[in-house]
Amino acid sequence: MEFFAELIGTALLTLLGGGVCAGVALKKSHANGSGWIVITFGWGFAVAMAVYLSGHISGAHINPAVTIGLAVANKFAWSKVLLYITAQMIGGFVGAAIVTVYYYQHFQATEDEGTVLGVYSTGPAISSTFFNLFSEIIGTFILVLVILVMGLQETSPGLGAIAVGFLVVSIGMSLGGTTGYAINPARDLGPRLAHFFLPVPNKGGSNWKYAWIPVVGPIIGGALAAAFYLVFFA
Amino acid sequence: MEFFAELIGTALLTLLGGGVCAGVALKKSHANGSGWIVITFGWGFAVAMAVYLSGHISGAHINPAVTIGLAVANKFAWSKVLLYITAQMIGGFVGAAIVTVYYYQHFQATEDEGTVLGVYSTGPAISSTFFNLFSEIIGTFILVLVILVMGLQETSPGLGAIAVGFLVVSIGMSLGGTTGYAINPARDLGPRLAHFFLPVPNKGGSNWKYAWIPVVGPIIGGALAAAFYLVFFA
Amino acid sequence: MEFFAELIGTALLTLLGGGVCAGVALKKSHANGSGWIVITFGWGFAVAMAVYLSGHISGAHINPAVTIGLAVANKFAWSKVLLYITAQMIGGFVGAAIVTVYYYQHFQATEDEGTVLGVYSTGPAISSTFFNLFSEIIGTFILVLVILVMGLQETSPGLGAIAVGFLVVSIGMSLGGTTGYAINPARDLGPRLAHFFLPVPNKGGSNWKYAWIPVVGPIIGGALAAAFYLVFFA
Amino acid sequence: MEFFAELIGTALLTLLGGGVCAGVALKKSHANGSGWIVITFGWGFAVAMAVYLSGHISGAHINPAVTIGLAVANKFAWSKVLLYITAQMIGGFVGAAIVTVYYYQHFQATEDEGTVLGVYSTGPAISSTFFNLFSEIIGTFILVLVILVMGLQETSPGLGAIAVGFLVVSIGMSLGGTTGYAINPARDLGPRLAHFFLPVPNKGGSNWKYAWIPVVGPIIGGALAAAFYLVFFA
Repeated sequence: MEFFAELIGTALLTLLGGGVCAGVALKKSHANGSGWIVITFGWGFAVAMAVYLSGHISGAHINPAVTIGLAVANKFAWSKVLLYITAQMIGGFVGAAIVTVYYYQHFQATEDEGTVLGVYSTGPAISSTFFNLFSEIIGTFILVLVILVMGLQETSPGLGAIAVGFLVVSIGMSLGGTTGYAINPARDLGPRLAHFFLPVPNKGGSNWKYAWIPVVGPIIGGALAAAFYLVFFA
Repeated sequence: MEFFAELIGTALLTLLGGGVCAGVALKKSHANGSGWIVITFGWGFAVAMAVYLSGHISGAHINPAVTIGLAVANKFAWSKVLLYITAQMIGGFVGAAIVTVYYYQHFQATEDEGTVLGVYSTGPAISSTFFNLFSEIIGTFILVLVILVMGLQETSPGLGAIAVGFLVVSIGMSLGGTTGYAINPARDLGPRLAHFFLPVPNKGGSNWKYAWIPVVGPIIGGALAAAFYLVFFA
Repeated sequence: MEFFAELIGTALLTLLGGGVCAGVALKKSHANGSGWIVITFGWGFAVAMAVYLSGHISGAHINPAVTIGLAVANKFAWSKVLLYITAQMIGGFVGAAIVTVYYYQHFQATEDEGTVLGVYSTGPAISSTFFNLFSEIIGTFILVLVILVMGLQETSPGLGAIAVGFLVVSIGMSLGGTTGYAINPARDLGPRLAHFFLPVPNKGGSNWKYAWIPVVGPIIGGALAAAFYLVFFA
Repeated sequence: MEFFAELIGTALLTLLGGGVCAGVALKKSHANGSGWIVITFGWGFAVAMAVYLSGHISGAHINPAVTIGLAVANKFAWSKVLLYITAQMIGGFVGAAIVTVYYYQHFQATEDEGTVLGVYSTGPAISSTFFNLFSEIIGTFILVLVILVMGLQETSPGLGAIAVGFLVVSIGMSLGGTTGYAINPARDLGPRLAHFFLPVPNKGGSNWKYAWIPVVGPIIGGALAAAFYLVFFA
């Protein structure tokens, strides 16, 4: 049941998150060109809704970096980590697959390959292994650290989901400018696999050269945050 | 009393929802051209306020897809479904009628017939029976599923109204780009009837050819969500 | 003490509310041109903060239409109505006076008289006694009705302030396009008096011909909402 | 422990706050040009997240004006004031230092010196000792006064952090147009020192001539707010 909850929670995340990218970026969409404010609130609310959906069953990690961070912080059993991450990866793929059908005609109307890939996965505004990795580490560090500390004080699950949503809006607005704030391997790699395997109209390459950064960076950031939490907050 | 609560709740929804479409789209409005961010927050808060208004009396379905979904999920008596839907349809018409008077001069100032219809009812960015229906099914599926699951954990009615409002903001931002997220037959058909019967300045046809999609799609989506809920969450 | 609380609550309202109009409209401001989304959230949060400031002392009416509405609904003593309204009017003036000093240099940099007046008071997008009055009646009707109904269910003052703030954002987004949603005589007449009496740079006339509408309309709307509440909700 | 909590709370504040300025202002950023709405929500959520991070340990002042204000209001020991302010200043520097690395390549891509400084510290839209000081005094007065009054009524820490975040959004939208709402010496002086000492690409002068205003103004404003609170609310 936890496996399934993580799967559909992450699927909802990448459906709503990929959806807002599609709506803003793809041609002829009603939301076309509505900008960063819509992207950031769209992703933040996507997380909040995914937390509502699966929170009471699986704790709504919906992010391997969160799962690993919680395990490092001794708040989650290592024996379940692989189960959760597998569910999240499948969920990330499924959500992106639904986006592919949902916005199919708008992909057809959009000729730029980079724009199409941007609906699925993040990419750096300026390429640099060091700086891009740094971005993903810092962004995820803050995500996981604040989630861990929030756990010490939140009063109701209903408010907690909104608070985590606002946290993601905050990270997006403040730290999204460089690499597009993947801060979640399942949110980036799952949809990238969907982009690679599915017959997405007007698609080009899936930028595999960059793909490891939004996987490795968030895992490092999440683990560091948990260590930091153990030393200073626990 | 429940009949009346659903009626005025839905009327408030289509008044505030139609209002934000009018404000953004119609000429000479102070809000003219303020874009998708205003549309999506405007509709989200419209739902939240309608939930505040009628929630403690009728449960604030204000949407036939929610009513049917709750009935399928065994959380609402089938015997009341027709009563609720009738109230919602009348309410949807009434709210749109008030918008017609409220923004009357701005309708007069706006010559484009498509823009005028857009204040009342949704329309597809790219026409396609399959894809448009798919959009409305998926959007409503998520609406009803998250509402059902929220019901398992929410703590206060005050917060619940805001949470449902943010859910609608989220669906709008992420899934509104294709068909304009009716996700509610009463929100679409009620105002379309108002557009058809009332002397709206500069109006053209009411696009009846499309009108069945934002009715049938949401009903299918809501029923599917309830079935999904029963299998996996109940 | 209640007198003082209403006074500073309303002063905070027109300081923050006038401030956001000044920031968006006046030349050389950092916020210049940031549009309707900033105006509507700015006014909504202005109300929320004013409610935090004076809520526990005076109930934070900060609006003669709310005071009269509550009196009609038998939730507030008629004997205090004049006291409250006097405090609100003085507060409305004081907040606008502070805005005058705060943005003084930006008034100097802005040559358009209509833009300057717009910082203080509302004006119709299209002039019409009937339609403008209708707008202010409907907008205030919804404000007061939802506030009254919220009072039946809210759980905490902290959340209540935010909920009322979102209500004002909602009314602004949906119903502000026609007359600029005064929906509060003290918010419109108080600052208009400040505009008239104070040496505001680049000011022109104070549009007294229109000034009665955002006073009379809200009072009618608030009283009607209270009557409606008594009949259907109490 | 309180020292450390204030330090990392303020570091998170200037990381997220400087980050949103960098994202919006620096060239080639994904968030480039997204405007005042993103700036104001970005700073507001930055404050909310910093409050979540350090609130339960140090009370999350993260602002010398708040610390001094609380001391004047007899809600905080004067003996700890210097400790807190030192931590906040260091934190302000640290957060800005991280922004320097985080957006390093984007600083390189941005040739305008004023834009670069704007990522770190505030500056007046129109220079004037009197008016600029007045802005910072009023803005901080409202910040500290509303925080003090909120303390009389808030129910949960989780909601309190969001409420304070919205307060900062409100001040930014309404009062940020003149001087950019430092309203916090540590948020302005700490990053200005980082700008001065660190090898920031394309940097020019650190505008030391102006630097005292966002330090002195907020301290005056915070102290006045506390005095006002003691007289009228305590």
